Order: sequence, then structure tokens, then C-alpha cells
Amino acid sequence: MRLSLSELAERLALPLRGDGSIGITGVAGIREAKDGDVTFLGNPRYEAYLGATLASAILMPASAVPKGFHLPVLESDRPYADFLKVLVLFASDRPRPPIGIHPTAVISTDARIGLEASIGPHVVIEDGASLGNHATVMAGCYLGRNVMVSDDCLIYPNVVIREESRIGRRVIIHAGAIIGDDGFGFIRDGDEIRKIPQIGNVEIGDDCEIGANTTIDRATTGTTTIGRGTRIDNLVMIAHNVHIGENSILCAQVGISGSATIGRDVTIGGQAGVVGHIEIGDHVRVGAQAGVTKPVASGVEVSGYPAMVHSQARRISASMRSVPEIVRLFRDFGRRLAELEKKTTNGGNRT
Amino acid sequence: MRLSLSELAERLALPLRGDGSIGITGVAGIREAKDGDVTFLGNPRYEAYLGATLASAILMPASAVPKGFHLPVLESDRPYADFLKVLVLFASDRPRPPIGIHPTAVISTDARIGLEASIGPHVVIEDGASLGNHATVMAGCYLGRNVMVSDDCLIYPNVVIREESRIGRRVIIHAGAIIGDDGFGFIRDGDEIRKIPQIGNVEIGDDCEIGANTTIDRATTGTTTIGRGTRIDNLVMIAHNVHIGENSILCAQVGISGSATIGRDVTIGGQAGVVGHIEIGDHVRVGAQAGVTKPVASGVEVSGYPAMVHSQARRISASMRSVPEIVRLFRDFGRRLAELEKKTTNGGNRT
Amino acid sequence: MRLSLSELAERLALPLRGDGSIGITGVAGIREAKDGDVTFLGNPRYEAYLGATLASAILMPASAVPKGFHLPVLESDRPYADFLKVLVLFASDRPRPPIGIHPTAVISTDARIGLEASIGPHVVIEDGASLGNHATVMAGCYLGRNVMVSDDCLIYPNVVIREESRIGRRVIIHAGAIIGDDGFGFIRDGDEIRKIPQIGNVEIGDDCEIGANTTIDRATTGTTTIGRGTRIDNLVMIAHNVHIGENSILCAQVGISGSATIGRDVTIGGQAGVVGHIEIGDHVRVGAQAGVTKPVASGVEVSGYPAMVHSQARRISASMRSVPEIVRLFRDFGRRLAELEKKTTNGGNRT
Repeated sequence: MRLSLSELAERLALPLRGDGSIGITGVAGIREAKDGDVTFLGNPRYEAYLGATLASAILMPASAVPKGFHLPVLESDRPYADFLKVLVLFASDRPRPPIGIHPTAVISTDARIGLEASIGPHVVIEDGASLGNHATVMAGCYLGRNVMVSDDCLIYPNVVIREESRIGRRVIIHAGAIIGDDGFGFIRDGDEIRKIPQIGNVEIGDDCEIGANTTIDRATTGTTTIGRGTRIDNLVMIAHNVHIGENSILCAQVGISGSATIGRDVTIGGQAGVVGHIEIGDHVRVGAQAGVTKPVASGVEVSGYPAMVHSQARRISASMRSVPEIVRLFRDFGRRLAELEKKTTNGGNRT
Repeated sequence: MRLSLSELAERLALPLRGDGSIGITGVAGIREAKDGDVTFLGNPRYEAYLGATLASAILMPASAVPKGFHLPVLESDRPYADFLKVLVLFASDRPRPPIGIHPTAVISTDARIGLEASIGPHVVIEDGASLGNHATVMAGCYLGRNVMVSDDCLIYPNVVIREESRIGRRVIIHAGAIIGDDGFGFIRDGDEIRKIPQIGNVEIGDDCEIGANTTIDRATTGTTTIGRGTRIDNLVMIAHNVHIGENSILCAQVGISGSATIGRDVTIGGQAGVVGHIEIGDHVRVGAQAGVTKPVASGVEVSGYPAMVHSQARRISASMRSVPEIVRLFRDFGRRLAELEKKTTNGGNRT
Repeated sequence: MRLSLSELAERLALPLRGDGSIGITGVAGIREAKDGDVTFLGNPRYEAYLGATLASAILMPASAVPKGFHLPVLESDRPYADFLKVLVLFASDRPRPPIGIHPTAVISTDARIGLEASIGPHVVIEDGASLGNHATVMAGCYLGRNVMVSDDCLIYPNVVIREESRIGRRVIIHAGAIIGDDGFGFIRDGDEIRKIPQIGNVEIGDDCEIGANTTIDRATTGTTTIGRGTRIDNLVMIAHNVHIGENSILCAQVGISGSATIGRDVTIGGQAGVVGHIEIGDHVRVGAQAGVTKPVASGVEVSGYPAMVHSQARRISASMRSVPEIVRLFRDFGRRLAELEKKTTNGGNRT
């Protein structure tokens, strides 16, 4: 896509200062921007980069423009919000896979395919599955028996969605994710281990996003549920019978063990783990690499291993640096105390 | 599947109390059960849910049935064991992929395919590979040169099994798992890094289960081995030349570094890591997120980072909470001790 | 491959002691070697295995050969280096996929395919993509629009490389890896979460290796870059806008958060994490499972959580074992100090 800067100013309804005839072909951060890019200044910390940026134009507050500034400016009081609009504009330009069913796809005659759906090469859709209107399923995906993928979903290549899973509207599932594989359920029976059949399913709410190579296990019985609007990053593991509320954010490589319940508007940092069968309330924040071993009440921030209230975890973590010195001096203190006690008692005896 | 409750009672050989004509169509935990489900009461902790459950029938000890209880009961002294039987019954009802080779599969004329095998769409099987009797390989899987997959295996979609790997009987491999990719072997050679060719293979014993998107590296030379009956969860990393004994359980996101040896009947909690070239004995338990940096003798339970005997790790972990206070008071103690020593010595001088 | 030991000695230009007519069919470590294998003795620690090895021949220094040693010896002053040459020799014997395009591959007429490229079954290559000379793309891979894969690359099965990604020469990408999936960029907007379009790309330098099921996110804007010669193990997560220098090594299950910058010749141990927006210098070593929360200067070794200089982390870690005892005694010390102070003051008063 190529817009003149004047056209861009018009679309954003922002005042333009400078040459509106230059062409804008991309967007970038202030340090990464190249010729043809529009960038933004949202945070005064980045003012130092104003002089050196290679961008062709910048979104920034009129009040922050330096005297004699060399770049054309789109004056904005909310530069980051307006920058996102430009991003969306350029992103919408990206071609989507063509509507229709690729001839190499293998689709059960018993599957229902919505209007204007796009199904890529080598996709497999089994009996009883349904794909919503305007949904896209890219190359190499597998949709098992009775899977429901709703309207406007976008499923990237090589995703596997196993039987009976139900995916809400406008869900994005990134490449290589596995939805509805068996929960990890076994019982030791004397010397043997027996598999507990996993006959539940997975339900993902509207507007969720599931990261690349993430795995979400089907429930043993019942349903593993991901609430509407929740975003899950890459390589995350969601075990069987987990329930996650709405609008929560799980960063990369997080692991949630079986039957844990996570509230809404929760944020879990990268590589953190949550043990099974506990409940984490709403609006909780879990620090990166934390190990949550106990329930967490709504609104609490936890971190560390085992996870505790963040302020306490930080205090403990900071105090750690003094431990080697304390260990070194402690025995000496003990000796000196005993010495003093002896002297004082002797003195007492002498009195 | 739909059974009358009487039929179910008969199959389980359990006494029935209540209306045997009702239809059972599923199984679920006591809190998730819906109309048509049979559930169970195995643990007195769940008695509180007896009144509210929406199940149509329940497996429970006759002695625990409340007076005037509203649900039909299958009387069982081992409700969980009997519940598992019902699970197996309903799971067996799940359709398996059809026997035969899908026309889109690409199979070397030099591969051997067993009797009544099922090969899904877009599967690729290379020269010299063999697939056992009654084995299932679902859509999009790749079996490399000379791979052996034995009788009754179930390989879910998009699994990659690279050349020379050998998979035992009745093994289940979940979607997206990668078996036999190169070990991570390099040597720094001056300013360059050189790859060490990985020409060994992987062997997986009978009755193993390998989780979704898990990766098991081939050996540099020799064989990476997974013992009979061992179960591995999702997103686990098994490095080159690792040996794991029989009937061990590795939870999600565990990482085992190169040339580590793990015994039999070992359980490793989620996200734990084991460094390379060490030996972990039989019946060992490793806590979630532990970092095992030293050998562990048979029968020992370890946790924490670096991992130590669990009881000690817990004691240390519990004592952490007091460290900030100790750090705060410690200098004060030192000052007071010095003060006392001065006084006592002065006193001594005065005598 | 089968060579006589004399032929092998000739190829390595090494003196041979013993019967050169025996056949060598493989390579293995001293403990794993079987009949037909050549092995090596590089480290005196392994001398104990000399008597028991089942190898047919061994690479070792002439000076280390025991009196009356029963095996043929290839005399080498650098046994490991020479062993690697044998590995390369036997590895080169492994058949590569046939040159040409499999008829089931779906290749845009607008893609450019290099000379003597190999494209396996069910591969999909989109508009504008290009594949270099002698490059191999195995079964089930997806190359998105405008992807560039350079000469001599080897892409294992079921890899997904999304639009606009650029892969250098001689890069190896292992099965199931996902290159160029969306960065995890969202902003909370009142009660909703909005996606930040990810319109940047990924660039991977020459001679890199990317592990199985690893994911490398495209940049929000600009480029996520992996420097020439860097090796990344399995199940690693590289977030959007990360920059990694040349010849670095990232072990399995490492996670690098958004916009972090990693230097050259860095080694990061398994399961370690790096927070976003920080810089890690050159030649840094990060211990396994470490959590790096702050910038690290070049040449420094860090470990632990939060990561600190390794020597300090070790000192703290070692001192931990004494903490429970200190906690137990500390209150007692306080009581005894107070007691002494009382006595001493009383004594003072009495004077």
C-alpha cells in the first residue's frame, strides 16, 4: 500500500504540518523506521531519537515538535492510538487467502461449510464438522469429527483441532497449535499405568487468540473452557478441565495444570506455572516464571516460587543478597553471645 | 451411545437403586454432569455436591446414600474404579478412522503396511518404513525412511517421525509431536560453530504415550530410548541420548538434557528440568519447576532450584519468609553485641 | 556405508595399528559402540571402558594405548576432532530427498524455485515466494507469500514459514517449527483487549539452525532478526522484535520476550527466560532456568532467579541451606541479647 501523507492525514482527521505529497508505504517504531515509514512519538523518553530517525513522517503532539524540526508531522494528542489506526490500515492491506475450497482439501460430504469460507490446500475436515461464514482455514489444518469453527475465524497452517471442539467467532489460531488433544490422565494400578479415557472436549469463546504450537487438552469429561476475548501466546500448555475466564492474557510457555480455574482479566507472565485443582481469582497478575501452588484471591499480584504476594516476594528476593554474609557472621554472633553470657553470669556470681 | 441405566448396571454387575429405564448418554464429574450423565461419589469431600448435581444417576457406596436421595444409584464400593469402566465403555464408542489407505497419502512402494491399518489423508511414508497391523496414522503425518511403527499404534495428525525411529506396540503419539529430530550437538571451533552430525535414532517402547507438540531428539550415535509404558505429556523436550526407564511419567513442559538417564517409575512434575549427563534412579519424584543439577538416588523425592531432598527444600522455602526481617535486625544485633562487649570488657577493666 | 579400517585410516591420514581388513559400518561412543563401530578415547576418564567396549576399532593417542590392547587403533593426537570427521563421513552417506517437485505439492506459478531444489509431498508455496538452489523443503511445509528461502537450506517436514520471512543460506529448520507467526501484541482498551496488527517480518541469517517446534514471532513493525550462525534448540520461543547476534546458542525451551536484544557468542541454558526490552551483551552466559530481568554486560555469566552474576548466585544458593537453622536460632539470639542488655544495664545502675 502507498498513500500520500495528505491522504493519511485525511483518513486520521489530523492536522498536517509539512509536505503532504510524500509517499507513505509503511509504519515502524522511531528507531526502526526507514524511508517511507510513518512513526510516532508517544513517550517523552524517545525524544532523543527525533533527530536521528529515518522515518518520512511522524505522529506527535504539536506541543512537542522541536523548533525547525525537519520532518513532516501529523499533529496528534494521542499519538499511540493514532499510530495503531495506521497499523490497522496497513495491516488490512495484507492479502487474505482466496475464498473457496482448494481442490486438494479433503472435506467430508457430511461437513457444513459457511458462505465465503476459505479452505487451503491439504486441509482435512471430518464428518459432522462445521465451518462458519467468512472463516479461513489455511493449508494443512485438520478439523476432527463434529468440530465447530464459527464465523470469521482465522486458522493458520498446520493447526489440529480434534473431535468435538467448539471454537467461537473471530478466533485466531496460530500455526501448529493443537486443540482438543487428550488430557494427561493416568492411574497407577500396581505395576502398570492405565490411561483414563478423555471423552470431554474444548470450547474457546469469541475473539480469543491462541498462539503458535500451543496445546489445549480436552477435558476428561465435561469441557476445558477458554473465556471470550482471552489471548494465549505461543507454546502454552492448558491441561484438561481447566477453565479460564474472559479477557485474560497468558504469555508464552505458561503451563496451567489440570482442573485449575483462572478468573477474568488475569495476566500470567511467561514461563509461569499453575498447579492443578486451584482457583485464581479475577484481575490477578502472576509474574513471569512464578510457580503458583495455592489459590490466589481476586486482584492480587503474585510472583516467585512458590508464588506469594508480589511485594513480599520482592522483599525476600532483595534480602537474599545478604544471606551469605549473615550465614558467615551468624556462628560468630553465637560464640560472642555465649562468651558474654558466661562473663555476665560469672560477674553475677562474683557479686 | 445410549444405554438404559439397567443395562449399565448389568454391564458393571452392580446393584441398582431407582428407575432403571432412564437413558444414560454420557459421563461427567459431579459438578459438570448434565442431564443424561452418570457421575460418581468417590471422596466424602464431594458430598456437598450431591444435592445440586444435574446428573441422571450416580455411582456411590450404598452406605453413603442420603435418606430420601432423589437420584438413581448404582451401588459400588469402588466408585472411581467403576466410573473408569463407564468411561472406557463410552470411549470405546468413539469412531476410529476407517481402515485402509486414503488416496491422497503418498506411500513408498518400498514401505510395508500391516493388516487393517488406517492411513489418513496426506500422510507420507518413506522407503523402508513399516506400519504394524491395526495401526492408525492420521492426516498429515510423516514417517521417514526405515521408520518402524508397530502393531496397534495410534498416531494423531501432523506428527513427524524421522528416519530410523522405532516405535513399539500400542503407542499413542499425539498431534504435532516430533520424534527423531536432530540432537542439539555443536562444538565451538574458533569463531565458528560446527554441527555434530546426529546419526543415531530413537526407540520408544510398547504402551508409551507421547504428548502433543513434544519433541524427542535422535541420538548423536546410538539410541535415545523411552522405556515401555512411560507416559510423556505435551511440549516436553527429550534431548539426544537420553534414556528413560519403564512406567515413568513426565508432565508437561519438562526438559531432559542430553545423555541424562532416568530410571523406572519416576514422576517428573511440570516445567521441571534435568541437566545433562546425570543419572536419576528408580521411583524418584521430581517436583514441578524443579531444576535437577545432580544425580538423584532411587526412591528420593526432590524439588526446588537447585533441586534438593523435598523435605529440606520445603524447610528452606518456608524459612525464606523470615529472611527480610532477619536482614533488617541483623545489623542491629551486631551493633548491640559490640556495645555489650565494650561494656563488659570495660567492666572487666574496672574490676 | 561400509569401509575397511584401512580405507578409513587413509581418509583420515592416521597411522593404523592392527588389522586393517575389518569392516567399519558405524560410529558410537565408547560405551554404546557395537560390533562394526569405530569409537574414540578423548578423555582419560573413559579409560576404564577400554577393556569392555564392543567397538571394532578406536581412535586414540598412541601414547594412551595399553600394553597388549586387543583392538585395532587409529592413532590420533586429536581423537575427538578425528571422530567428528568420521561422523561427517557416515552422515554424508544418509540419503537426501530426491531433487524435483513432488506432484502433490501446490506451488504458485508466481513462486521462483532454484536449481536442483527438492520439494516434498503436500508442500505449499505461495505467491512471490522463492526457494534457493539446492534447497530442500520436505513434506507438509508451508511457505507463505513472499517468503525467501535461500540456497542450500534444509527444511524438515511440517514447518510453517509465514509471509515475508527471509531465511539465509544453509539454514536448517527442524520439523514443526513456526517462523513468522504474529507477535503477541495487545492493548487493554477499557474492558476490551485489542490486537496490535503485526506487520513486520523475520530474518534468519546464514548457517543458523532452528529446533523442532520452536516459534519465532514476526515483528510488530520492522524485523525480528536471528544473526548468522546462531543455533536454537527445540521448543524455544523468540518474541516479536527480538534481535539475536551471530553465533549464539539458545538451548531448549528458552523464552526471549519482546524487543529484547541478545549479543553475539551468547549461550543461554535450557528453560531460561529473558524479559522484554533489555539488552544482553556479547559472550554472555545465562544458566539453565535463569530469569534475566535486567540488562547484562558483555562477558558476564549470570544464573538464578532473578538472574545475577553467577558467582554471587552460587554463593547465595549455597548459603540457603543454613537459613532454616538461622531462623530457628534468631529469636533465641534476640531474647538472649535483650537479657544481657538488661543485666548489663542493671549492673551499670548498681554501680
